[in-house]
Parts: sequence; structure tokens; C-alpha cells
Amino acid sequence: MADAGAAHQLEEGPRDRIAVAADVAGSTTVPAAERPSAGQRAAASAGRYLDLNADLGEGFGVWRLTDDEALLGLVTSANVACGFHAGDPATMRRTCDHAVRLGVRIGAQVSYRDLAGFGRRRIDMDPADLRDDVTYQLGALDAFARVAGDRVRYVKPHGALYNTIVADEGQAQAVVDAVRGYDATLPVLGLPGSVWLRQAAAAGLVTVGEAFADRAYTPAGTLVSRRSPGAVLDDPDAVVARGVRMATEGTVLSEQGTPVRILARSLCVHGDTPGAVEVVRRLRRALHDAGVALSPFC
Amino acid sequence: MADAGAAHQLEEGPRDRIAVAADVAGSTTVPAAERPSAGQRAAASAGRYLDLNADLGEGFGVWRLTDDEALLGLVTSANVACGFHAGDPATMRRTCDHAVRLGVRIGAQVSYRDLAGFGRRRIDMDPADLRDDVTYQLGALDAFARVAGDRVRYVKPHGALYNTIVADEGQAQAVVDAVRGYDATLPVLGLPGSVWLRQAAAAGLVTVGEAFADRAYTPAGTLVSRRSPGAVLDDPDAVVARGVRMATEGTVLSEQGTPVRILARSLCVHGDTPGAVEVVRRLRRALHDAGVALSPFC
Amino acid sequence: MADAGAAHQLEEGPRDRIAVAADVAGSTTVPAAERPSAGQRAAASAGRYLDLNADLGEGFGVWRLTDDEALLGLVTSANVACGFHAGDPATMRRTCDHAVRLGVRIGAQVSYRDLAGFGRRRIDMDPADLRDDVTYQLGALDAFARVAGDRVRYVKPHGALYNTIVADEGQAQAVVDAVRGYDATLPVLGLPGSVWLRQAAAAGLVTVGEAFADRAYTPAGTLVSRRSPGAVLDDPDAVVARGVRMATEGTVLSEQGTPVRILARSLCVHGDTPGAVEVVRRLRRALHDAGVALSPFC
Amino acid sequence: MADAGAAHQLEEGPRDRIAVAADVAGSTTVPAAERPSAGQRAAASAGRYLDLNADLGEGFGVWRLTDDEALLGLVTSANVACGFHAGDPATMRRTCDHAVRLGVRIGAQVSYRDLAGFGRRRIDMDPADLRDDVTYQLGALDAFARVAGDRVRYVKPHGALYNTIVADEGQAQAVVDAVRGYDATLPVLGLPGSVWLRQAAAAGLVTVGEAFADRAYTPAGTLVSRRSPGAVLDDPDAVVARGVRMATEGTVLSEQGTPVRILARSLCVHGDTPGAVEVVRRLRRALHDAGVALSPFC
Repeated sequence: MADAGAAHQLEEGPRDRIAVAADVAGSTTVPAAERPSAGQRAAASAGRYLDLNADLGEGFGVWRLTDDEALLGLVTSANVACGFHAGDPATMRRTCDHAVRLGVRIGAQVSYRDLAGFGRRRIDMDPADLRDDVTYQLGALDAFARVAGDRVRYVKPHGALYNTIVADEGQAQAVVDAVRGYDATLPVLGLPGSVWLRQAAAAGLVTVGEAFADRAYTPAGTLVSRRSPGAVLDDPDAVVARGVRMATEGTVLSEQGTPVRILARSLCVHGDTPGAVEVVRRLRRALHDAGVALSPFC
Repeated sequence: MADAGAAHQLEEGPRDRIAVAADVAGSTTVPAAERPSAGQRAAASAGRYLDLNADLGEGFGVWRLTDDEALLGLVTSANVACGFHAGDPATMRRTCDHAVRLGVRIGAQVSYRDLAGFGRRRIDMDPADLRDDVTYQLGALDAFARVAGDRVRYVKPHGALYNTIVADEGQAQAVVDAVRGYDATLPVLGLPGSVWLRQAAAAGLVTVGEAFADRAYTPAGTLVSRRSPGAVLDDPDAVVARGVRMATEGTVLSEQGTPVRILARSLCVHGDTPGAVEVVRRLRRALHDAGVALSPFC
Repeated sequence: MADAGAAHQLEEGPRDRIAVAADVAGSTTVPAAERPSAGQRAAASAGRYLDLNADLGEGFGVWRLTDDEALLGLVTSANVACGFHAGDPATMRRTCDHAVRLGVRIGAQVSYRDLAGFGRRRIDMDPADLRDDVTYQLGALDAFARVAGDRVRYVKPHGALYNTIVADEGQAQAVVDAVRGYDATLPVLGLPGSVWLRQAAAAGLVTVGEAFADRAYTPAGTLVSRRSPGAVLDDPDAVVARGVRMATEGTVLSEQGTPVRILARSLCVHGDTPGAVEVVRRLRRALHDAGVALSPFC
Repeated sequence: MADAGAAHQLEEGPRDRIAVAADVAGSTTVPAAERPSAGQRAAASAGRYLDLNADLGEGFGVWRLTDDEALLGLVTSANVACGFHAGDPATMRRTCDHAVRLGVRIGAQVSYRDLAGFGRRRIDMDPADLRDDVTYQLGALDAFARVAGDRVRYVKPHGALYNTIVADEGQAQAVVDAVRGYDATLPVLGLPGSVWLRQAAAAGLVTVGEAFADRAYTPAGTLVSRRSPGAVLDDPDAVVARGVRMATEGTVLSEQGTPVRILARSLCVHGDTPGAVEVVRRLRRALHDAGVALSPFC
């Protein structure tokens, strides 16, 4: 089955912070927040709306990872680290302040407690403890979002937690319970077809799927394993072209060359290298030229 | 000056989680929240109202420190650890759930980031960073308080931070800024005469002073240094008697035997030993017999 | 197979710090260090030698867990926490000083980096990173052992790491590599039949198996899963009797009542409750009365 | 007095990882290890010997700070972070392996426990606890140095600890006690005239002073406060010229233009920016051209 395949592929990769999503059957809940405002409608007329999300604020103390300043000028949604895999309080405040000034939505990038491993190590923890860890992070980030004049708008788990809850029902439910307990109106962002989104929807949460322009897809619409050659696309031109096609036609060519339907409201982009930022900049421009309006999904 | 004296005395003590307060000039702002409800008024008629506050939830993971279950049945306000000196998320949730069930108010016991030192080591940190650390903790605890059905009701710094901001204007202002930025209606609890309460009041926050039944006072109303013999009273009978006198007459006998005016709305009690819990139990009974109604200050 | 069975049973338990071992085939390497000194030989004549090992120094900062003082007077080998799941430097120094004064051997109780979870959560980490984490802990504890006048004498992994390397070859090899790289003469202590001991022996390390007097065994000599009723024995009399039988006859009665051969040089005892300490005290006396000489295995 | 002045100046700076030393009266102990080998003597003939030390391995997990690869090819002594302000075990191993391959000496850059503040915040901790924290770090780094084929050769405290023990006798003695307890033959590196070096010498440790080519000196030979304009030299040409003059003539021009005697066996260089690395490269070349042989001080 497609979902199980996606899960397995994700677990293989050493770094799957930015997993892909193929929305095969249109099962993703359509959030009310997705509906564009009148102003957005005028600007985009017959076009489509797309959200660009990226991981941000992933430094700690003196250390930096992502070029937050550049990225915040390019994306519409910021997955902000909450202190457990990255993100000391000063970085969180700075990132939230900057995001609010630029109208970028703040999402809680919750994680396992793992600074040394950057949240990329699966931890077999009790679901109740995981729920509490997520609650803690939600509240902490929300404090900075509120001080900055907005609030946490959505939740997107990070790294190994993202990958684990593609398939692990116990841990997925723990995150769902944390979100629902904290604020049942918060949308959650993740991999289409994942256990995480399915259980979130069952719990009444708004779910939003994301896609990746730089990952190869199978004909079934799942991600090609990172271990396979060609799983990650390096060519900026190809990445930009795929992103535009996803946004305008709702499809991507699989590795076999067959078109696959991709109905993702948000595109996940990388920003942890200077080259990556430049690709996002080009993608943005190409999307604009193709009549795609960038707008946050919530 | 009395305040400076208090500050110096506090800095001497190795463990001043529970510093004392002498409200000499009645300078403490009287919070609106202090006014009892009609029900409380009926119950206490001509009597006085007193809040009992204690540090709670000061374990971490498998480790426990305070007998939280016993204390939550005795106090009216719980200073709950927020994860920086103690308090893992599971402990925070459990403590908040229990407090809300019993009608005990939840206060944020914010601290320096110092698990190894239990927050008892002064850290010379940038005030902006301290402000962000406090904001982070406020948000994190508030998440659990809200999930439990209430919210953080007040703020009381812990340990070395408590002592530092008795006199350090930069760090005191950092905590004030954090509270005001997060929720300007939150009362703050602390040592009467401290820079912390003075700057909080100047910033428009409601301030509440606390007193200690087991600490010796100078004739000027400041705490006797912990280094002096007799600074901490061991005799349960004496502690109980002093607590009742503070609540009913608003005075305490100084170490010279002179009466000193103590106008504290809250009495800080200890709970980190079985004996201490028993003293609190006796104090509670004696207060009841003396017609003092226990009620939270907010 | 017995080993796989043991592994699975261990993984089931929520707290398996003290897993059991059944040395069915006598495959455990006999360490040179096991040979008693002439003095010991005189004292024990025709008797047997047994080591008692316990987890110690498992506090952190203000927090305590085990009654280290009591236990250090009873055991012959101390598995000392190294800072990753417990054990701040001050606790490590104090524990090492005390152990050396009493002639108790110091073993490195290495763990995953997990204070919040007390090292009881399996972490899927890169074996190279795990090797480095173990090396770090070995060196840190060795510093205190040397300052106290001795040195680290053996290695016994803790909690989830102990259980994981019963069966996980990659992580087991990581720990083996760390020990061999640090000091190839260090014996390792663990579950007989485990991948950990097998790979350690293959790498030329001295391996020592341990048994448990308070756990039920299957007829095949593996531990009964903690999930099964009767897996952990509560009756102090039964525990003491089993410990003596293990030491004098080298057997234990399985849950079906059949005798099982147990050839463990070391018996793991618990000390995290007052009652547990008393059981150890009684076991010690009973062993003495049965002519079993307690002596460290290294 | 000059020393006190130096201490005060150091405490003013927000980042004094690389404090300066003026060896006015030649009071620095001359370590036996300073004497060059016959081979070094042949190479340098009538010239002078100089050690270049730099902070290295100051990343944590995914985060990097210094360009370790470049610096290890340029310096003779590496102050390696030990995990308390930076330096996860994998980084420590990698740095030690690389250093040993290149013949660079490994020094323990011990620090307060402060990842969030990068060890730049003074912590008022009990000297006994500080001693234990330093012992822990010494042992941990030594493990990696030994696995790499060498061992820790010297100790240089980091950041706020470096600055604190310029004047704080209690904390200085704590670090001295840790070094002496761990290995009394280990030289210590620091600011000439500091309490730290003075107490280390009194305890029988070999002490080595360091100088800074990019800091302004007073006529008395102490460092100009970082808060004064011109305290830190930006001009690469000036920095290189001063470094050469220090090495060949043993003097530096004070900010008033008067020559000041500087007898430092080691020069501390920075490497946390690409530009800084280039300055080190040029300094190295200029020293070589001036007949100064670079050799570790131990």
C-alpha cells in the first residue's frame, strides 16, 4: 500500500526533515483557512494558491544553521524550532518577531528532546511523555508568537518524529492529543497518507499535506527512498520546473515518467545551504510568472 | 537601608528558595485579586485572609523532591517549576492537573537554566536573554495550566534568580519585561522591598509580598542572614505560632524581641521534607482555629 | 532460540535496568580477574565466589535515587552512572571516593544521553555516535575513579542501552568498539547469551555474565517476560533462597519447577527502594552462612 | 596594580575567549616542556620558539563554529571544547584524531556547563562543584586524546571561566585542584599575572602565559578594555606585524606608543571567521620569514 511504502521510505533516510507527500486520493481535509481572501482572489484570479514552508530558527545559542533572514523573505510559513532539537529562547523570539513583521505564519516545529542529535534520532518513548513534551514546546513557542503579536498557527513535527509518525500509531496519537488538548483549531502539516494526518483528521483537526519539488516520486505517488539513486534532485532547473508543475497542474512526473497527481496545498523548501536559498528564490519567481499566488495555508 | 540589607542577606544563603519579606512601609501594591469573593467573606467574617504558597513539581524525570501530593492538599498557591531548574513536562502536567482539581492556583516558578545546580547558582547573563528564558518558561507552563482547565495566575522566580533580583536592576527588569510582555495582568510574588517588586509595580504589574514563618527578622523588618545562628527556626511550635501572629496581628517578633510589622498577603512554606509537610499541616490548623481564612491571593 | 527469546522479553519490560542472565551453555568467557587471591581462597576454601553488583550514583544535582551509602556497604561492584542518564560530576566523585574507601569495584554504567527519560528510552542513533558517547562517559568516570585512587574496572551499559544490545548488532558493536578503543583490558558485564557479550568476546574483551535472584526463568534458561504474571518475585524469602541456590548449586528453579543451570559470576541486586536494600542485606548474610565468599569479579 | 587591572578589563568584555597576557616581570614559570628538541633547535638555530593556540571543536551536533580543518593546519596547540560549552563527543573525537595526525597538541578547554550561553556567562557556583565539573571534562577529553594516540597535554579554561579566574581565588583554586588531582604534570595556559596562573604555580603546576597580537596593551602591560575604542585591532597588517614583534623582540607597542615587554611562550589566535583564518595564515608565514620556529609549548 502506498502509505506503508511512504513510511518505509522515510525511515530509511538519514535526514528526512523534509519528507514528501503524494496526495493520491484527495483524502486530505481541506481547511477553511485555505480559502483565499478577496484580495488574494483578485491577485491570483484563475491561478492557484501555494504555501511555501521551511524550517527556521534551527540554531542554538551562538550556533546558526539556516539563513533565517533570507528565508523569511521568501516563504509564507515558518516551521520554528521550539527548543528541543534546536531553538534557544532568544532565537525563538527573534524568529517570531521577524516572521510577524513579514506576515509569515508561525508553525511549531515540535521535536524529540535531542539537541545532540538535532532531533534526527527516533526515541522509543512513552506516548504520554511525548504528548507532554509536545505540549511544552507548543506553549513555549506560542509565548513568543503572542509577544510578537500573532500566535502559533499550525504544527509540523520535525526530523525523526516527523518520520516516526508516518507509521507509528502510538506516537502519532500522542502528537495529535497534544495539539488537540492545546488548541483544537490548530491545523497540522505533514505527509499526505501518513498515519499522523489520518489520526489528526479523525480527531477533528484540520490537516494539510505538503509536497517536495526536489524528491523523486513513484508512479503510486509515494516518495522514492533516499537510498535509491536519483531520489533527490540536484538540478535547480528541474526542481523549479517540478515545483511549478505541481502548483499549476497538480501533477509530477514519476521516476518512470508517468504523471502522478499531487494535491498539496504547501510545498516544503530547504534553506540550510546558500545554494538552497537561491533555488527557493528562483522557484518563487517562476511560480509568480506562472500565475501562482503564494499565500499561507492558514 | 532595609532593602539593600535584605538583598545582601539573601545572597549569603546557600539555599534561599524561600526568602522572607518584611513589609515595613506598606508599600506593597494591594492587588484587586486580593479581595475575597462573597463566599470567602462569609466564611471569614471579621477574620483575615492568607495565602499559603509552596514550591512544587520540583522533580525531573524519575527524580522527585517535594511531596507534591501532600502539599497540594495544604496550600492555596503552587509555585510550579517550569523545566529550567526542575520540572520535566510530565511532572508539569501532573502537577497542574492536580492543582486545578484542588482549586490551588498555579504560579510560574521561573528560573535560570540550570538543572545540575537546581537553579541555585547566580548566572551573569544578558538581561535580554534572561527575559527570553522567562518568556519561554511562562508559555510552557501556561500550556499545561490551560490543558488542565485554568491558566498561570502569577509569577514567582526561583532560587538564585529570586535572590539576584532582590537587588539587581538589570535582571529584575528582564523578568518584569517578560511578565509584562506575556500577560500584563499577571501578579508577581516576591520579597517586599525588593528591586523586583518595585520595578514590577513601576511597570504596572500587580505585586504581592510574601513572609516566612520560619525565618528570624531584624528590628528593621529584613531577614536575618542565613549565616547567623538562629536565622532559621527549627521548632515547629515556634514556626506555627509566628505564622498565626503574622496572619492575625500583622507582626512578628524580631530577634531582639521587638515587634515588627509584617503585611504579607502570602506566607511561603516549605515542603521538601516529611517534617516540613507536617509543620504546614499544623500551621493550617492553627490558622483555621485563629479565624484566618486561607484563600489564594489571585 | 534462547538468546532471541531473552532479547524479546527484555524489550517488553518498562524498566529492565536489571535484566537477568542464564548461562546455559557455559559460553561466558572466564575472566582472569575472577580467580580469587590467596587470601580470598583461604577464606572461602571449598566455597564459591560471587560478585554482587548494583546501580549506584543515579542521582543528579539535588536529586537522589538510590541509597548509595547503604548499598556501597553491601555490594562488591558498583555500576556508577556517568552523567548521561544520571550522575552529575559531584555525585560521581562522591560515589567513586566512597567505593574506593570500601574496596568496591567501580564499573562504568554507560547510557544513552537521556536525563529526562533516565536512559530508559531506546534511541536509534548512529553507531559511530554511540561509540563516541560511550567513550566520553568512560573517560569522565575514569577521571573520578583515578582521583579516588583506583580506576574504572569494568563496563555495564544501562537501561535501554543494556536491553537494546542484547540483540542489536550495530549498537552492540559500537559499545564494544568504545571499550576496546579506550582500554582493551576492561571486562564487560551483561546478559549471558546476549549479542553484546558475544561480540565483546569476539573482539577479545573479557566478558562476565550476571544473574538475577528476583526474576523468573524459563526452562530454557531465559528470563520470563516482565509482562507475564510472576515474572518478578516479591517475596524476600524466595529471592534470598534463589540467590543462595544460584551461588551454591549454580541452578535456579524455572517457573515450571525444573532446575536450570545458571553459571553467573555476578548477581545483580536492586537498591532503589528501602525494602530492596534490606533484601540485599539478608541475601548477603545468607550467602555468608552458606559459605559463599563475596568478591568482585575483577 | 597591573593584574587587577587586567582582571577588570577582562570582565568588561562580552566575549573574551581570547584574552591577552602581558608578562611584565618575567614571573611566568618556564616549563621544561618548552625546551625544544634537538631537531627543533637545528631548524630554528638562533631564532625563537613560539606556540600558536586556538579554540577548536566548538561545534555541537550539527552545528559548527570554527573552521577546524583550516586551523589545525596552522596552529601548534588546540584548545578543544569538552562538551560543557560546546563539543559533543563526535566532534571531540574528530578533532582529537585530526590534531594527533597533524602533531598538534591537545589542550582541554574546560568551561562552565552552559551550552545555551556558550560558556560566556559567569556562574556563581560552589568551588567544589566547579572542581568536579572540570575533572569530568578533563577525563572525557582525555579519552578521545588517548584513543587518537596521544593524551591531553595542557589545560586552558574557556570564556567566562577564563575571565573569572583572572581574579576569583575560589574558582581559580577549584580549577587548579581539578588539574592537580587529575594529573599534576599537566601545564596550564592562561593570562600572565592572573590569579589562575599564580595559584597554579603555587600548587606546583607548570604555567604558561599567552599573548594576543590583535589586542591593544597599556603601558603597564595589561590589556586595554574591550570597551575602549581601539582595544581590538582590525587591520591584518598591524596584527601580523605585532605578532612578529612579540615573537622576535619580546615587546609590543602600547596604545601610547611606548614599548612594553611581552614574554609569552604562546600566542592565542582566533579562527571563528574566514577572515580570521586568513590572518593566522599570514601571521604564520611572517613568523617563518622572521626566523621564528613554531613549536608547541608542551
